[in-house]
Amino acid sequence: MAKEITPRSEDYSQWYLDIVQKARLADNSPVRGCMVIKPHGFGLWEKMRDQLDFMFKETGHVNAYFPLFIPKSFLSKEAAHVEGFAKECAVVTHYRLKNDPNGGGVVVDPEAKLEEELIVRPTSETIIWDTYRNWIQSYRDLPLLINQWANVVRWEMRTRPFLRTAEFLWQEGHTAHASAAEAVDETLLILDVYARFAEEWMAMPVIKGIKTPNERFAGADETYCIEALMQDGKALQAGTSHFLGQNFAKAFDVQFLNKENQQEYVWATSWGVSTRLIGGLIMTHSDDDGLVLPPRLAPIQVVIVPIPKPSDELTLVANKIAADLKAKGIRVKIDNDDQNRPGFKFAEYEMIGIPVRLGLGQRDIAAGQIEVARRDTKEKASVALDTIADHVENLLEEIQQNLFNRAKAYRDEHITRVDTWDEFVQILEEKGGFISAHWDGTTETEEEVKTLTKATIRCIPVDAPEEDGKCVRTGKPSKRRVLFAKAY
Amino acid sequence: MAKEITPRSEDYSQWYLDIVQKARLADNSPVRGCMVIKPHGFGLWEKMRDQLDFMFKETGHVNAYFPLFIPKSFLSKEAAHVEGFAKECAVVTHYRLKNDPNGGGVVVDPEAKLEEELIVRPTSETIIWDTYRNWIQSYRDLPLLINQWANVVRWEMRTRPFLRTAEFLWQEGHTAHASAAEAVDETLLILDVYARFAEEWMAMPVIKGIKTPNERFAGADETYCIEALMQDGKALQAGTSHFLGQNFAKAFDVQFLNKENQQEYVWATSWGVSTRLIGGLIMTHSDDDGLVLPPRLAPIQVVIVPIPKPSDELTLVANKIAADLKAKGIRVKIDNDDQNRPGFKFAEYEMIGIPVRLGLGQRDIAAGQIEVARRDTKEKASVALDTIADHVENLLEEIQQNLFNRAKAYRDEHITRVDTWDEFVQILEEKGGFISAHWDGTTETEEEVKTLTKATIRCIPVDAPEEDGKCVRTGKPSKRRVLFAKAY
Repeated sequence: MAKEITPRSEDYSQWYLDIVQKARLADNSPVRGCMVIKPHGFGLWEKMRDQLDFMFKETGHVNAYFPLFIPKSFLSKEAAHVEGFAKECAVVTHYRLKNDPNGGGVVVDPEAKLEEELIVRPTSETIIWDTYRNWIQSYRDLPLLINQWANVVRWEMRTRPFLRTAEFLWQEGHTAHASAAEAVDETLLILDVYARFAEEWMAMPVIKGIKTPNERFAGADETYCIEALMQDGKALQAGTSHFLGQNFAKAFDVQFLNKENQQEYVWATSWGVSTRLIGGLIMTHSDDDGLVLPPRLAPIQVVIVPIPKPSDELTLVANKIAADLKAKGIRVKIDNDDQNRPGFKFAEYEMIGIPVRLGLGQRDIAAGQIEVARRDTKEKASVALDTIADHVENLLEEIQQNLFNRAKAYRDEHITRVDTWDEFVQILEEKGGFISAHWDGTTETEEEVKTLTKATIRCIPVDAPEEDGKCVRTGKPSKRRVLFAKAY
Repeated sequence: MAKEITPRSEDYSQWYLDIVQKARLADNSPVRGCMVIKPHGFGLWEKMRDQLDFMFKETGHVNAYFPLFIPKSFLSKEAAHVEGFAKECAVVTHYRLKNDPNGGGVVVDPEAKLEEELIVRPTSETIIWDTYRNWIQSYRDLPLLINQWANVVRWEMRTRPFLRTAEFLWQEGHTAHASAAEAVDETLLILDVYARFAEEWMAMPVIKGIKTPNERFAGADETYCIEALMQDGKALQAGTSHFLGQNFAKAFDVQFLNKENQQEYVWATSWGVSTRLIGGLIMTHSDDDGLVLPPRLAPIQVVIVPIPKPSDELTLVANKIAADLKAKGIRVKIDNDDQNRPGFKFAEYEMIGIPVRLGLGQRDIAAGQIEVARRDTKEKASVALDTIADHVENLLEEIQQNLFNRAKAYRDEHITRVDTWDEFVQILEEKGGFISAHWDGTTETEEEVKTLTKATIRCIPVDAPEEDGKCVRTGKPSKRRVLFAKAY
């Protein structure tokens, strides 16, 4: 199996596609740009979703569900929003098929044309703010802290499984507040939730930052983001949290009676992460032998493989170990297949990223021990059978931490402070990663850098210190460094 | 609040709509036939989904995700299937909007017309079996036990929140097997899961049965169902499990190498329940004061209301009780609102169906007791403070059981054995419910009964004993009774 993966050094892009395919995460579908998320990939998404959902609820949010379809006229109500999304919309125009009178199978029934076309939601601000108008009358109805887990569609021209697909799964939070300050606090609260999730659960270090006006969400006053660095030196925007000001409240006329008894437009935020995170997870940890999963998100954390194959005695021991691990809340599978050989199974479990593999042989049992293999470092060790459950529990934590440390070391090594244009171009080409450089604050310069190098400003880090400097491109004065990178 | 609900005796249909609205379960949306599921309604759906998901996984199923869109040509591949779904499809024809050159806002870009139209999935057999063709080669790849949680769209002309909406949420299981017998076993296994869920979790008694050919799923060889009875004497199909034979395998050319080393078409099942279950839940238990929720599915099981309003001392006691209840895994809320009066709050909690309400007053505390009100019977009792957690734990179980018993008594009283046509018409008009009667087995008679009375054959109960009789309509010979009813 492992041999079928293209090495990263040879073709990073193909390596990624190979991992998605061979680790059984997703398949292409007959529908352009849409993927099938296979059980192993969906199991991973379920773990991510459940943890995020827990964190949202812990911070006071509740879930709801809004329609898949958005009337076309709604999109137009917020000018920047329609500009941002109109060019990539799936449009429903009819509601019925009929038999072709000329015998050509089923065709669209021209008599079943909708009066107003419906857009398959690319994001739900418009339909949600149209609804909020009926839900919000006074400051007592605020804040409204609602999240939705849903599928959305953006008709992307170039797609890539998980990273950019026409349909994807995500969560979108949409909150309503009585003041700008409270809405900004919410935006930052969620940014923290995203960063904690990325670092503590995905073991993926991220930089929290602010997007430049040019890179803002269509309809936002400010967009915050978390940015991660992939193994090929390209950045990945992993999540965004938007302060929407009163833009959608004004577009949909959502006012409330404030404590001073005056009508005021409601303040808004929206925020989302998607199945794109799976792409980030793959490209943060995996290697040329397959997927590497952080233990906290692995659908199966430990696999027990009887060697050379299951027998009554081995199964008895395996069941005992599995029971002890389950009692500790560890997700474990016993491989009861007696068709394939251990070598084949080992390669397979490496491929799909199971963090810990226990090899259980007759001689091992006699000697009171068991072989423990960890996926992250490929190290193997013999461990006493009577301490195995504790050992595995600790090992899973160690792997989780090691993956984060490894990724963070790589990321930190790939933030380069640069002060001249020549160096900028050179570092970008030869080393990649984030370039920390001064920028004059204009969209013109940002666009020029992008045209010349394909690098974009990923963010202005929220903790960027004030520092006098000169723009790396124009030499004009700048007050702080921003992070440039090529990005997914 | 409660006064705003139309009594069932006056207008059952309006009562239902009032409950949906006033118990804050769902709202209408600006998109025809689509509803907004509000946080309280979605919280209920989450509980149902989580339990069903647990039961599916316990029986060996895994989740995956398939595209929202289905190429039009796929629908046509299974003749009965397209016949069943073509007339209610949302059709995507374009993938871009543009600014109207005549200044009329955004319009569909005629240059962005899809070569082949895409159907928003009304159900996913076609796209899934097209995918299975690549996943199944040999008997070793079988069985394939996959479920999907998704939104689907059927362009219904007359809609009603939860019961019949253009978009709804559901799960659809799609399994593949090496033999007809194994597929039938799977169909029945899931029918059991559905029945257990309905009875043990929703406290809604159901009858397991087989649909007549006329009422089968479009593309199935046999459709099994669970049928429940609503308070107005109408039946509700609450879930279906289909044995699809080799129909979809043949339509999408999915063959496998069997153990005898021969190519064979794969055997299939599909099965689903949807947000329709919420409609069934409402109409099984609720009353003229609002929603009644079975404790096991209530998002909040117990609410503690300080009387007349929160104070430091009351909050201290409330927190202690809440902690004790949470330690037992009970979902509890403390009402810390100090704006509204207890009477208003009580009506509100009755309206939204919280199973148990604890009223906590200063005098009660002094006397070492607390007032316990149960939603199902409206009974109140004073209970010693030091045994309250155990009391509530038992009470929740008692309410769950009482709701089921009450619904089952009603249902059982409304299954009437009928042997003449006059009696059939009379019972249907005056009493409603299920009519257990003989039927000659023909679609003609079934249709005739429907035309004359609006009653349909809900199912042939799986446990219907053989019994010689004469068709209630035609007098022709029959071997067993079937259940007729008017239905949602």
